[in-house]
Amino acid sequence: MRSSRPRRIKPLVAFQGEPGAFSQTAIRQFFGDRVDILPCQRFDEVFQALAAKRAAAAVIPIENTLHGSVHENYDHLLHFDFEIVAETNVRIVHNLIACPGVPFRAVRRVFSHPVAINQCLDFFAAHPAIERVPYYDTAGSVKMLMEEHPRDAAAIASALAAEIYGAQMLRRSIEDDRRNFTRFFLLRRRGERLAVSPGKTGGPDFKTSIVFTTRNIPGALFRALSAFALRDLNLTKIESRPLRGKPWEYLFYLDLIGHMEDPALSRAVANVGEIADLLRVLGSYPRAAH
Amino acid sequence: MRSSRPRRIKPLVAFQGEPGAFSQTAIRQFFGDRVDILPCQRFDEVFQALAAKRAAAAVIPIENTLHGSVHENYDHLLHFDFEIVAETNVRIVHNLIACPGVPFRAVRRVFSHPVAINQCLDFFAAHPAIERVPYYDTAGSVKMLMEEHPRDAAAIASALAAEIYGAQMLRRSIEDDRRNFTRFFLLRRRGERLAVSPGKTGGPDFKTSIVFTTRNIPGALFRALSAFALRDLNLTKIESRPLRGKPWEYLFYLDLIGHMEDPALSRAVANVGEIADLLRVLGSYPRAAH
Repeated sequence: MRSSRPRRIKPLVAFQGEPGAFSQTAIRQFFGDRVDILPCQRFDEVFQALAAKRAAAAVIPIENTLHGSVHENYDHLLHFDFEIVAETNVRIVHNLIACPGVPFRAVRRVFSHPVAINQCLDFFAAHPAIERVPYYDTAGSVKMLMEEHPRDAAAIASALAAEIYGAQMLRRSIEDDRRNFTRFFLLRRRGERLAVSPGKTGGPDFKTSIVFTTRNIPGALFRALSAFALRDLNLTKIESRPLRGKPWEYLFYLDLIGHMEDPALSRAVANVGEIADLLRVLGSYPRAAH
Repeated sequence: MRSSRPRRIKPLVAFQGEPGAFSQTAIRQFFGDRVDILPCQRFDEVFQALAAKRAAAAVIPIENTLHGSVHENYDHLLHFDFEIVAETNVRIVHNLIACPGVPFRAVRRVFSHPVAINQCLDFFAAHPAIERVPYYDTAGSVKMLMEEHPRDAAAIASALAAEIYGAQMLRRSIEDDRRNFTRFFLLRRRGERLAVSPGKTGGPDFKTSIVFTTRNIPGALFRALSAFALRDLNLTKIESRPLRGKPWEYLFYLDLIGHMEDPALSRAVANVGEIADLLRVLGSYPRAAH
């Protein structure tokens, strides 16, 4: 009788990209294999999937050590009223991946997203006979190889992509810069508990992320920061972003050490609210290892 | 005799990308056609070309309204001791471009960089029969079309790329988001005058860009900002960036309204120098129209 019992359905986590994308590596870091994935083509579709309850949670990249903040996702965080419940950092490791049985010496063409190709220029300089072929997606290029089985081609993608599509790893970690990390947020609908808790991705500290807007009258930001400085509260991120069409108005992203349940932090945030035109607390979550 | 006189050589300006890249649009905004271009494959090559005097000036992107700051170029600004002499904002307009004689109804395939393709998803949703083909470079895809003359293909690139390669514009401004701007810096070797001055890209205000590092002891940033707030000096950008491997040390990018020759600003910057571990003044330049 046991075999006829329906397979237990795992909660779905939405992300942008193909299966094997770095966002899925982040999902693995949060949940291991205790969830299933809902791949989406665009970031707004990730947020819509969470809003429409097609997904129990969502994982989004928020900043990268080389490319800066993903402003589009900050915009979605303002538009959708979700809560950040965890963060994790994923090191962007690029690997050379081919179909089983294709040796390195047979590789004449390498497919990948141009951004990934451009992060492996030392590898291509050392192997000038190998042609670089741009493709939509890093993980998608592995999927394509496994469908078409070319004998002379490889792809650049994550180790997870090799695992998912059953491809073989020819060279590990061919990226030029090992300091390439992307920070991801785990989001849930505000006030709802997740069916599966994320594993421990952080230490004992908490972080709180807030967004606020202010007109840049001299000292407005200074007064906002004084609310934290006067209470010895630490920042781990501050970033301004001009509001287009409003030459003197700015959006600020702040990450603070502490939890909104800490009285000093919540009083400081309330203080900022008095100065800001708009203030949104995005969530309090364990601080990830650096 | 006049025809045997050598053609007057224009100063060279280095940039990253193919001819027709958006960086060249920025060069046009600065200089019109009073300079020649030196295209480079990588950002570090742009900086090296300026250091080795192969170029008289360099133009680099420093931030984008959707994708954030180009940290790599901030790193090069710290490493190479160049001076910012001007800034300009380029609106990223994507156009559908084909070989002369190819009508829109014949287009079955569109080549471009995947980032550009993904910024035109509304266009592709409205024309589902058109296949998207990833390519290295926006301008490079126009160049390729003009070399190979396919009768069924188009590219997505800048108006400048269409002009340079003699291609025709099929559809203007097919990008989803019109608030996509990239900010560029014009750089020169410190203390050397440019052979050609940039045209007017800014209003009457000046901006000064500085970079400094500090340990995030509570209030260190607050004290640095107090140097500006106490003198009623305005900020137009503030951004922190963690120094990897040094969990509590940060790099800060600040843009201030004012010129280093203003006594109040230079005193405030000197103040920050007392608190910071490292301080670099990147330059004072006219503030571009927003």
